[in-house]
Amino acid sequence: MLHATLIKGSFQDSVTLMVLSRDLSQAPHVNRVSVMMGTPANKDVFRETGLWHPALEAATPNDLCVVVDCDDPDPAVAEQVAAELKERLARMARDRRASGYAVARSWRRARQLLPDANIALVSVAGHYAAEPTRQALEDGCHVMMFSDNVSYEQELELKSIARDKGLIVMGPDCGTAIVNKAPLAFANRVPAGPIAIVGASGTGIQELGSQIARLGGGITHAIGLGGRDLSERIGGISALTALDMVARDPDSRVVAFVSKPPAPTVRTRIFERMRALGKPVVALFLGERPSRRVFGNVHLAGTLDEAAALAVELAAADAQAARLPNVCGRGVCGLYTGGTLAAEAALLLAETLDLAPDASHDEGYMLRAGGHRIIDLGDDAYTRGRPHPMIDPTLRSDMIRGLADDPAYGVLLLDIVLGFGGHRDPAGEAAAAVAAMRAARCDSAPIVVIATVTGTAADPQDRGSQIAKLEEAGIFVADSVRAAVLLAVRAITPTAPSSSEPPDLLRAEPAVVNIGLRGFADDLSANGVRVVHQQWEPVAGGNPRLQRLVALMQ
Amino acid sequence: MLHATLIKGSFQDSVTLMVLSRDLSQAPHVNRVSVMMGTPANKDVFRETGLWHPALEAATPNDLCVVVDCDDPDPAVAEQVAAELKERLARMARDRRASGYAVARSWRRARQLLPDANIALVSVAGHYAAEPTRQALEDGCHVMMFSDNVSYEQELELKSIARDKGLIVMGPDCGTAIVNKAPLAFANRVPAGPIAIVGASGTGIQELGSQIARLGGGITHAIGLGGRDLSERIGGISALTALDMVARDPDSRVVAFVSKPPAPTVRTRIFERMRALGKPVVALFLGERPSRRVFGNVHLAGTLDEAAALAVELAAADAQAARLPNVCGRGVCGLYTGGTLAAEAALLLAETLDLAPDASHDEGYMLRAGGHRIIDLGDDAYTRGRPHPMIDPTLRSDMIRGLADDPAYGVLLLDIVLGFGGHRDPAGEAAAAVAAMRAARCDSAPIVVIATVTGTAADPQDRGSQIAKLEEAGIFVADSVRAAVLLAVRAITPTAPSSSEPPDLLRAEPAVVNIGLRGFADDLSANGVRVVHQQWEPVAGGNPRLQRLVALMQ
Repeated sequence: MLHATLIKGSFQDSVTLMVLSRDLSQAPHVNRVSVMMGTPANKDVFRETGLWHPALEAATPNDLCVVVDCDDPDPAVAEQVAAELKERLARMARDRRASGYAVARSWRRARQLLPDANIALVSVAGHYAAEPTRQALEDGCHVMMFSDNVSYEQELELKSIARDKGLIVMGPDCGTAIVNKAPLAFANRVPAGPIAIVGASGTGIQELGSQIARLGGGITHAIGLGGRDLSERIGGISALTALDMVARDPDSRVVAFVSKPPAPTVRTRIFERMRALGKPVVALFLGERPSRRVFGNVHLAGTLDEAAALAVELAAADAQAARLPNVCGRGVCGLYTGGTLAAEAALLLAETLDLAPDASHDEGYMLRAGGHRIIDLGDDAYTRGRPHPMIDPTLRSDMIRGLADDPAYGVLLLDIVLGFGGHRDPAGEAAAAVAAMRAARCDSAPIVVIATVTGTAADPQDRGSQIAKLEEAGIFVADSVRAAVLLAVRAITPTAPSSSEPPDLLRAEPAVVNIGLRGFADDLSANGVRVVHQQWEPVAGGNPRLQRLVALMQ
Repeated sequence: MLHATLIKGSFQDSVTLMVLSRDLSQAPHVNRVSVMMGTPANKDVFRETGLWHPALEAATPNDLCVVVDCDDPDPAVAEQVAAELKERLARMARDRRASGYAVARSWRRARQLLPDANIALVSVAGHYAAEPTRQALEDGCHVMMFSDNVSYEQELELKSIARDKGLIVMGPDCGTAIVNKAPLAFANRVPAGPIAIVGASGTGIQELGSQIARLGGGITHAIGLGGRDLSERIGGISALTALDMVARDPDSRVVAFVSKPPAPTVRTRIFERMRALGKPVVALFLGERPSRRVFGNVHLAGTLDEAAALAVELAAADAQAARLPNVCGRGVCGLYTGGTLAAEAALLLAETLDLAPDASHDEGYMLRAGGHRIIDLGDDAYTRGRPHPMIDPTLRSDMIRGLADDPAYGVLLLDIVLGFGGHRDPAGEAAAAVAAMRAARCDSAPIVVIATVTGTAADPQDRGSQIAKLEEAGIFVADSVRAAVLLAVRAITPTAPSSSEPPDLLRAEPAVVNIGLRGFADDLSANGVRVVHQQWEPVAGGNPRLQRLVALMQ
């Protein structure tokens, strides 16, 4: 048995209504309660879910429709529900008045209350989202469109307007953004750090941020693009703007990007922009299977956790490189006693710098290109009539000392191999040779020395004390050959000059006009972000013909 | 000025000689001292390095040649060096007599002293290595050939003999093996654990072991193959034997394999064997660029540290799966509130199990194949007229409870998404639904529930207490979607039956005959391994013609 009540002119947001529906359905003697605004789409839902009542015919999008399904024909049950609903609405109105932020009935009023507003957070139903978005853009505000069901045409139009005005539209259909710690819609409290996240999808951004936090890293901002931004039709407009913004943001030292595989032409454009960003970028095009994993500054990840781990590692390398002497533009020399370690270093360095590894391996050269060289000193060329350099590192020590006269090299990569059968103090030998080389080298040619240590705490040489010896000698110890090459590349790569004009969205203290779901304003306010909630209702009661008339008259 | 001395019939191994040369070169008034056995190759080295002296002409491979280069024409300087050398040799002989293991002059004598010897460690010069290797194989011992410069023909012949006798030749030119904790040649003390390493190169094995130890993992054994084992000519004979051995070893739960890219036909054979191994395998063909990263039980890694991390992760999943109920052969059901998380789970599950992800995404299905399904409950099909499941998880909870009637599924994958805007207690809701579903499910159909938690410690829901709620409800919490899928696959995959016949090399207490470098026997003895050192000297003084005659007469 269905009972219906209309509450005229009482607009509530969809989440509020759903929570009300769920809670009121728990009332005694009631099968189900549905509370929705009287939009045409919602009327269809009432019909499809068997809750249609003729009284709903008269409802407008500004009217609250309450349908109570109960077995009791007595109207008292439904009246009880309606009374409970009205009391809840009144209580919510009181709570809102007591909240720490202002509520406005119009965009103009919201702007008067928050004259320096720079972001509009739009979460009205998709059908209506374009209009408040356009208004905010024309008024110079960036927009986060939480709303979904925005048409391609509208998305393209709004993003084009934004681009022309130096603004960004985040979304539509993007659940997450964090700008200067302001949580825009669904957002996590991720520790502050040097990684900027740019992502097409909400949970992709959320998971990246969570994994970064789990690994001890942190973020500057998280910019959402919307699931269709990288389609052929939208052309990645917001992605390109976001990449420009994080490129110009001096605090964002590493960029982590996540999306589905973009349309091919868009992928090309995005990838070119990444390559030219002047910062390390981790790109996860989820579903692509990249065979090559690194292209200069751009690292392709395969999964969300891998992308986060790479970003954290690159940020650590960046921080480490800032403490190293400037060896920008100079060569990398790898002197390895382990053949496989030399091969891995050569492969990774070649892949990163787009060089060809040395195929012939003459004289143990695993790489000899672009001013860099990686040598396997265990090659026959070096062991004929001599013990293997893991047993007797004399030859390598001589070669290290020889670098005193070779200022072209700015980075020296070494391996220290511990274990039975090997030299009793390979770190001590390497440290002494590095000290002698540095003493003989001219001051204008510093050299960064990065070692990896193969061996365990239980090995006769003791990994811990070997590492201590290296570090005392000013040698950086990397956790793996991959990490060593990553740091070497970071050290020799020019860093982007500090931007003279950081983007205002990322620099300014955020001030948000929240249009739609009230809860987002609560969260912003609770996080100390200045916010005005615009209590949004469809223009002209949601009647499309009247709306067009109103638009023409404005 | 050069002075030469011959010490007849005093064979020393090459490493000992090199250490002596280095130390004696520090003597006063001396430029350089070189001490080598009088082999033809060493005589060439004397000539090439400007240390040739006519007295060397008479030297045989069993004679110690001492050449002293000094500016002083007084022979007293050289005599002083020779005296010092003789004293050192006498001291070494005393030390050796005091060492804890026996020394034999022949293979036969060594076998008498160690009747249950099962491994021969051969490190004589490559030119001579085949003969003691063949002898050991024919006597039923496995062989680790540390020696390099063994010809392809000899390697193929020796490995074929080994294969026919159910034995393995590790090496030649392989620096490392660890069998039942016995360090064979260069080796690290890696903690005990469930990972078996199989590798073509010494430092590849050493670095894998070190990285596994660094990540808290451990190994059963490390089997070296030699750098050419995977060539077309050798055909991966030792690799196939090693894979068979670790397959039959019940303690080896995960296999980590490292080599250069094998010859194509060999790669096919090795890969097939890996696929049929019945255990998770991580394969690193260093230099290959795999675009697909997982084929059922075989995971392809790109770098040494990645291979180690994967192996440790797979071992952890294996240990975890052993504590889970048996859901072998049943389906995986993923009910995700986050679209990107659903997409990642579907991609990884499809890739692992060789299924096609659902391209149309109808009804939010990201995967619907092979008895598995992954659904994105944020899809329009589920959110029309309802709040997003991150806000209101009721729909998902209903679907979880619905699994009570669907025993086909043995694993349930869930995401718990925290943060502003989301539900206040998603873990509590999921835990309650899982408890209800389990209570209603028949006992013969257990279900493994694996959740990931997206969110940080600072989120309003508090990641730590959300995880605790899940764990209290018997839900396993994985660190990432990738880890969750890995565990899910492990749970539904049949495990190899316990071998009825574990390989004797890996089961028996190792007993080693060390032939060549004395230091390896010292290391074995120091590690509590029973060892006899065979003081090896070339047959017939190293004269090839005499050797052939001796061989004919035997």
